Amino acid sequence: MAQNVYDNPEFFSGYSQLPRQVHGLAGAPEWPALRAMFPEMAGKRAVDLGCGFGWVSRWLHENGAQTVLGIDLSENMISRARELTADPAVAYQIADIETLELPEAAFDFAFSSLTFHYIRDFDRLARMVQRSLTPGSHFVFSIEHPIFMAATHPHWIEDEDGRKTWPVNRYALEGERRTDWFAKGVVKYHRRVGTTLNALIRAGFVIETVDEFAPSPEQIRGIPALEEELERPMMLLVSSRR
Amino acid sequence: MAQNVYDNPEFFSGYSQLPRQVHGLAGAPEWPALRAMFPEMAGKRAVDLGCGFGWVSRWLHENGAQTVLGIDLSENMISRARELTADPAVAYQIADIETLELPEAAFDFAFSSLTFHYIRDFDRLARMVQRSLTPGSHFVFSIEHPIFMAATHPHWIEDEDGRKTWPVNRYALEGERRTDWFAKGVVKYHRRVGTTLNALIRAGFVIETVDEFAPSPEQIRGIPALEEELERPMMLLVSSRR
Repeated sequence: MAQNVYDNPEFFSGYSQLPRQVHGLAGAPEWPALRAMFPEMAGKRAVDLGCGFGWVSRWLHENGAQTVLGIDLSENMISRARELTADPAVAYQIADIETLELPEAAFDFAFSSLTFHYIRDFDRLARMVQRSLTPGSHFVFSIEHPIFMAATHPHWIEDEDGRKTWPVNRYALEGERRTDWFAKGVVKYHRRVGTTLNALIRAGFVIETVDEFAPSPEQIRGIPALEEELERPMMLLVSSRR
Repeated sequence: MAQNVYDNPEFFSGYSQLPRQVHGLAGAPEWPALRAMFPEMAGKRAVDLGCGFGWVSRWLHENGAQTVLGIDLSENMISRARELTADPAVAYQIADIETLELPEAAFDFAFSSLTFHYIRDFDRLARMVQRSLTPGSHFVFSIEHPIFMAATHPHWIEDEDGRKTWPVNRYALEGERRTDWFAKGVVKYHRRVGTTLNALIRAGFVIETVDEFAPSPEQIRGIPALEEELERPMMLLVSSRR
């Protein structure tokens, strides 16, 4: 079973204060880039893997999806998602994506935001999502970028000119990474960009777009702290088609 | 026109001493991984973009390709390639890949080793290669990995544990990079992994495999210095299909 750090009160309390939890999609700078990868939503049956508070699940329904199933390991997250959701076309389920089996060909769109880097076996997950989708369906997701995750000590350093610089080591040594992020010893799984893409391709997906999110000049004018995201990517956004 | 550093005597003299030039394919640790991406070669008309001394051009013919056209900007490289090649089925041409136009549907396999990071306009190149290939053909190439190329000062540093670490900055700031490598001010073009893959997809290729080369345990036992390649990738290997 995947580590359920989201139901650790210390973690949940810190996590809930993140701009993207307080402000929803408006607090997620990568949202416009992710949304640009979505197909036309009208009439689609969508699944949102690691739905958290359900911000995207609700958006999908408001933008045409017929039904949305949001899935999350965390009882805290699902409780809040249910509180925030009025429409019964958006349903929620507590489940561990690491072992989840969705019904075959039950969905026309699969989405996940910043969840799969908590999953140990991405090969299994990609095959399972592929089976759950109808032919032609899109599978769009974001994960922490492996450049961001690889190093033993992933934090800003400076180069000889004082420029903000990110250290990379252990890039080819895939597997568990433990970091302190609102709680001690949060477990994540580092995979190379190629490993993630090849797992999708082997599972039967065609890669459509690979975006290593960087803020736009307008976003940086609005939130100057985003400028450091130009130095190294924090998120990898992938659009694929079954 | 692309910078022709290979015809700078100082550069060429240093470059010619590299293990991969002295020992050919046996001196290129990524060669087994690249070769594993090749389709069956029998009867194929192949093009080798940035063929250098023609090591791969000759290998392709020896392994079934009917004809091979090796192309390089450098007169030095092409002269040496011609000296090393006896079979007229392997031909060479001096040309700048930045502006080259190959005939339409004239090839069944396109290859390039460590050349495209010298090319400013990869979008144009991908479209040109696509037109030059017959449907179903493979396009396999290696480039310097953007993790290796991005930073202002790309060289080993140490983290707080003394672990070999590679600095990344300016990752999202694509474009020219100047480095000193056998000569001063060698011009390369940094592109994100996603930018390279998206250009291929837009040009009409399907991504088949993305390999961020890392040496095998056997290779490290043979050449212990290769171990540092586990810390950060130096090369990106891509297989795609038209």
